[in-house]
Amino acid sequence: MAGNSFGQVFRLTTWGESHGVAVGCTLDGCPAGLALSVDDVQRELDRRRVGQSKVSSQRQELDRVEILSGLFEGRTTGTPLSMLVRNTDAKPGHYEDIKQLYRPGHADYSWDVKYGFRDWRGGGRSSARETIGRVAGGAVAKLLLATAGITIVAYTLQLGGLRAQQIDEQEIERNIMRCPDAAVAELMVAQVDQARRERDSLGGIVEVRARGVPPGLGEPVFDKLQADIGKAMFSIPAIKGVEFGEGFGVAHARGSQHNDPFVRHADGSIGTSTNHHGGILGGISTGEEIILRLAAKPPASIAQPQSTVNQAGDPATITVHGRHDPTVLPRLVPIAEAMLALVLADHLLRQRMDRV
Amino acid sequence: MAGNSFGQVFRLTTWGESHGVAVGCTLDGCPAGLALSVDDVQRELDRRRVGQSKVSSQRQELDRVEILSGLFEGRTTGTPLSMLVRNTDAKPGHYEDIKQLYRPGHADYSWDVKYGFRDWRGGGRSSARETIGRVAGGAVAKLLLATAGITIVAYTLQLGGLRAQQIDEQEIERNIMRCPDAAVAELMVAQVDQARRERDSLGGIVEVRARGVPPGLGEPVFDKLQADIGKAMFSIPAIKGVEFGEGFGVAHARGSQHNDPFVRHADGSIGTSTNHHGGILGGISTGEEIILRLAAKPPASIAQPQSTVNQAGDPATITVHGRHDPTVLPRLVPIAEAMLALVLADHLLRQRMDRV
Amino acid sequence: MAGNSFGQVFRLTTWGESHGVAVGCTLDGCPAGLALSVDDVQRELDRRRVGQSKVSSQRQELDRVEILSGLFEGRTTGTPLSMLVRNTDAKPGHYEDIKQLYRPGHADYSWDVKYGFRDWRGGGRSSARETIGRVAGGAVAKLLLATAGITIVAYTLQLGGLRAQQIDEQEIERNIMRCPDAAVAELMVAQVDQARRERDSLGGIVEVRARGVPPGLGEPVFDKLQADIGKAMFSIPAIKGVEFGEGFGVAHARGSQHNDPFVRHADGSIGTSTNHHGGILGGISTGEEIILRLAAKPPASIAQPQSTVNQAGDPATITVHGRHDPTVLPRLVPIAEAMLALVLADHLLRQRMDRV
Amino acid sequence: MAGNSFGQVFRLTTWGESHGVAVGCTLDGCPAGLALSVDDVQRELDRRRVGQSKVSSQRQELDRVEILSGLFEGRTTGTPLSMLVRNTDAKPGHYEDIKQLYRPGHADYSWDVKYGFRDWRGGGRSSARETIGRVAGGAVAKLLLATAGITIVAYTLQLGGLRAQQIDEQEIERNIMRCPDAAVAELMVAQVDQARRERDSLGGIVEVRARGVPPGLGEPVFDKLQADIGKAMFSIPAIKGVEFGEGFGVAHARGSQHNDPFVRHADGSIGTSTNHHGGILGGISTGEEIILRLAAKPPASIAQPQSTVNQAGDPATITVHGRHDPTVLPRLVPIAEAMLALVLADHLLRQRMDRV
Repeated sequence: MAGNSFGQVFRLTTWGESHGVAVGCTLDGCPAGLALSVDDVQRELDRRRVGQSKVSSQRQELDRVEILSGLFEGRTTGTPLSMLVRNTDAKPGHYEDIKQLYRPGHADYSWDVKYGFRDWRGGGRSSARETIGRVAGGAVAKLLLATAGITIVAYTLQLGGLRAQQIDEQEIERNIMRCPDAAVAELMVAQVDQARRERDSLGGIVEVRARGVPPGLGEPVFDKLQADIGKAMFSIPAIKGVEFGEGFGVAHARGSQHNDPFVRHADGSIGTSTNHHGGILGGISTGEEIILRLAAKPPASIAQPQSTVNQAGDPATITVHGRHDPTVLPRLVPIAEAMLALVLADHLLRQRMDRV
Repeated sequence: MAGNSFGQVFRLTTWGESHGVAVGCTLDGCPAGLALSVDDVQRELDRRRVGQSKVSSQRQELDRVEILSGLFEGRTTGTPLSMLVRNTDAKPGHYEDIKQLYRPGHADYSWDVKYGFRDWRGGGRSSARETIGRVAGGAVAKLLLATAGITIVAYTLQLGGLRAQQIDEQEIERNIMRCPDAAVAELMVAQVDQARRERDSLGGIVEVRARGVPPGLGEPVFDKLQADIGKAMFSIPAIKGVEFGEGFGVAHARGSQHNDPFVRHADGSIGTSTNHHGGILGGISTGEEIILRLAAKPPASIAQPQSTVNQAGDPATITVHGRHDPTVLPRLVPIAEAMLALVLADHLLRQRMDRV
Repeated sequence: MAGNSFGQVFRLTTWGESHGVAVGCTLDGCPAGLALSVDDVQRELDRRRVGQSKVSSQRQELDRVEILSGLFEGRTTGTPLSMLVRNTDAKPGHYEDIKQLYRPGHADYSWDVKYGFRDWRGGGRSSARETIGRVAGGAVAKLLLATAGITIVAYTLQLGGLRAQQIDEQEIERNIMRCPDAAVAELMVAQVDQARRERDSLGGIVEVRARGVPPGLGEPVFDKLQADIGKAMFSIPAIKGVEFGEGFGVAHARGSQHNDPFVRHADGSIGTSTNHHGGILGGISTGEEIILRLAAKPPASIAQPQSTVNQAGDPATITVHGRHDPTVLPRLVPIAEAMLALVLADHLLRQRMDRV
Repeated sequence: MAGNSFGQVFRLTTWGESHGVAVGCTLDGCPAGLALSVDDVQRELDRRRVGQSKVSSQRQELDRVEILSGLFEGRTTGTPLSMLVRNTDAKPGHYEDIKQLYRPGHADYSWDVKYGFRDWRGGGRSSARETIGRVAGGAVAKLLLATAGITIVAYTLQLGGLRAQQIDEQEIERNIMRCPDAAVAELMVAQVDQARRERDSLGGIVEVRARGVPPGLGEPVFDKLQADIGKAMFSIPAIKGVEFGEGFGVAHARGSQHNDPFVRHADGSIGTSTNHHGGILGGISTGEEIILRLAAKPPASIAQPQSTVNQAGDPATITVHGRHDPTVLPRLVPIAEAMLALVLADHLLRQRMDRV
């Protein structure tokens, strides 16, 4: 049953398969009057694009976006934005040989059971190529958030045992790992490079932050802000864990330490003097910075032989060729930003209905 | 804007405040013909009830449920089930003194900003008392799942530095911590007891499992099974982290280790020989056990003085009296089970529409 | 599948069966801060109550409503309003004899086929008693609309060949037909009385109007204002036709006559000099009065023998005893008002998100 | 707020403006395994295409559809179908002169008030060109319905005082009015031709029927089958009235005449001996033919001077040039079929969840 839409009022529907004609999205519910250009969207798509460095897949796609509707004289009209990116470097032949084998760590088997058959070309719709529609929609969300003074930033926090020791946001886009610590970034690149040579892949952690989020966003009791963000993040391929503020560290905490005292900030606003809670209390934003972390598994596609079965259940050995990412982390950064932007845009609009 | 419903087709709406007249729920979308009795629901409510032991709040509520509709001659009719629990031990006077102060770690401030005012009696709707409606709905979900051979179990895995060393499911309901390791449970109780005496509270981790889940549940790309479960869990008060399978451990993993080889099981079904993935691949269940963990923060209500501000932003000291849980873990167990049951029931029904 | 909720953001869920324990509703999405009392709701329920006159059913129900949540110190809190009315005069015994027969004009057969069995007591949930939840929710909607200067009125326009010749709104609540023409009302009462003596029932037309609706309500292209109103009205039992403005009369119209010229009104606002369109153009309100008419079929329950079949398909004769309305018109009036209020409240809130 | 999607589980989102780059749709929730080709969709689009005869607009559009996703090896995959039609004969210049005037009978004014500005080129999204996405989605719905033995037919029943005297379905596609009575069709064409010469337009009535609909479709109480059909039809531009079965004729009916006796049909199934009810009772299909009628207003665009105001509210005279339909009836036929198909497909799938 239909599951390709996200958001209640700022509502994105993505479509498209990895090696089909095109991928894209329809964004319904964007308010009228938002200044928007193709470049605003293209810029974000360029950030998630493949073939950018030695730590990402070598598939060559320009990912040129076309905006087909909803835009008139440089502003959104209140009607759906339809955005389209043609697939130009599709090479389904890479998958012809293994179309009857289930790739370990991939959705091939569960997809077959669910739908009776599947588009086996590069994972079809389970490919990360689907996230193009998310990033396009997220680009519009970011513009809407900007009108309210909200900014979002994400970065690679950890790869294996390597963790950023400092958060220099200026550094993020300067290195191919999108790590805010230049020295650690260098070590990470070396580690990814080695994993690639060993035909293996690596997991890690991305941290995401939103600043300028006004207090009051989030809808108790099921559409709490952390609940919708949690859903958004767990809908991204490869994500196995999500935590806010202190996250799993709360298992070791006491209430007396963990509770953040309320204070009056220098600008007169009320807030908390510490931010263990990560910007959300009771499902509603507090005005403090929203902080979360995502655990991303090592990409399942690795160029070494693995044991599996075919559709009949017979044992087989599979080697996944094709062009793959040895780590998803740097490309996950713009995707995670897009998903957080989509959630916040949705709740920014929903908040308008809170009071008479 | 409306956020008190959960599920697309098996759809629960909860309502009610901690110290209002009653709490309850409306469950729409339950198929007709499901055998159901009041006892089925009462049993689950009794598990989450307060006043059961020295590790939970001393508020005395019988939580007797009444089923007002949707049931005829012992079976569901396909019409909405309305379920009601009267509040009998409400003591709003406990909160009169602090109604203008923001309790640290609570939703008081964010709620005030959002709605302009709030029901300050025991947190109003942000109270965990709201979860009665969830557990009532979850009880019906469990019955539906049982018709498909699906069972759910949750337990306290960790409290501070104490972690269950063995998982003996028979043990869970035998101790007041709902820990599957009797020896560790005893240590946990002692630790909670001490925290209570110190007027403090403790965080921890609950693990949740579902068995017998058929492969094919979950709707790409946004309503992935882990996405909807993630949302469900993050909608529970106090949850700060959710992880599936290896969870945050994937940060240290390599693809070659983390990928679970597909095999033919002894019963002829296809599955995986290991279960690092936690029962879901590509957002769709694989037929393997679903495993997840929840990080619960220490309850914010502690009976020691804390610094805060009042509604005007002036500094103040607050001491939260009332009857509180020194840890949420044992009561979180039935709530987490209920939420997982609701998600699985929803997707079990949604799966019926996957194929022509 | 779940179909008991109405509205996207001002969202009403009704529940309950005719001869069950109670009927009621949950209203989610009502903004915080709306002044509301039990009396506001009771007043509307009293208008739709049975047993009020010789033109309605003789079932005796007080329909006392209880508000269980969402209200604090006289104002809505932004949390769900749960409202409850106990059934006190349920007499399921009236239906015991005919529980295996399909009453002509009723939902018995289609309900049986759909769900496999049914609550046969008074039609169960297909009874008009379900509309109590709608009227309760509609009462809250009317209060919200009042804050924006919107008022709604409905009345019996036509019964058989009798049609109101003048619309005196002061007259509506003065006669038991709720007809705005006192003289015609008298004739209608006589006609209903005669039909009742002949153990028969009568159809007719109700007209509904909304004034003070600001221009701009309605969401192209599927949630057009007339589309959502149309759905609302066709969800009321007995409605077989809905028309706006000139309605079916447009079949005979020419564009040059039917188009309403735009003008500047005396108050400076833009509007139309005539109102053939009925207050909505392109799915969006124009600021002119919204006018629609509903065709209501004669009640299916009549106390004369009718031929039918039983569950096995065998021919049978059925005589429906019990307490029935010889016409639904006067009681349809508050129900139609409630449904229109629900739609307008929903769109009034949705409009808040139209612009950046 | 987002209103461009229709259907709960078989969910269509349309996008695009009359003189923008393209129009199209995304269809989510179509089950996997449905045989589908581009021709299946193109055939329906060709039926609604303009420029086909002297009774429709002379705009020349080939309306070639491209299916961008969701289709693999001739079958739907369970993922969203994205369909695209480029606008090739857009002539926005036709509208440049009148962009500040409000065309009588059109959405120009209400759109401006709602969104603050509008795409004035040919009505932008309020143009009937938007219905291309509906017809494309409806084509897929028809294929799904065909697998269940359901067929849909619509035709022009009435134009002004001319009404089909016989329903010969073979005749429908043989004449340009799509009238099932050849003789009356000829008179209709003459009348339309005359109206066009007089620079005027005509209203009328379309009748729509569905056969083979199994009993049990429709979801009480708000998503009743007639309620969802009612919404679908009122979402089509120009529709001012919808009626089922006897429709507004019920105002003159008595229960004893109007009730349809239940009988056992020759094939053993249960049904009714007459069909005054139009195939739906209690919101649920009965298995009898579904019959409804739509009243369509005369097209608002007429090539004669009309009085109006400009955006400032100043009086003005407007003459709408461009290429317009003197009647919408023949082109309404495939659109009405598409909308009915979408509703039935949605409910056919929803019905799968009715029972345990």
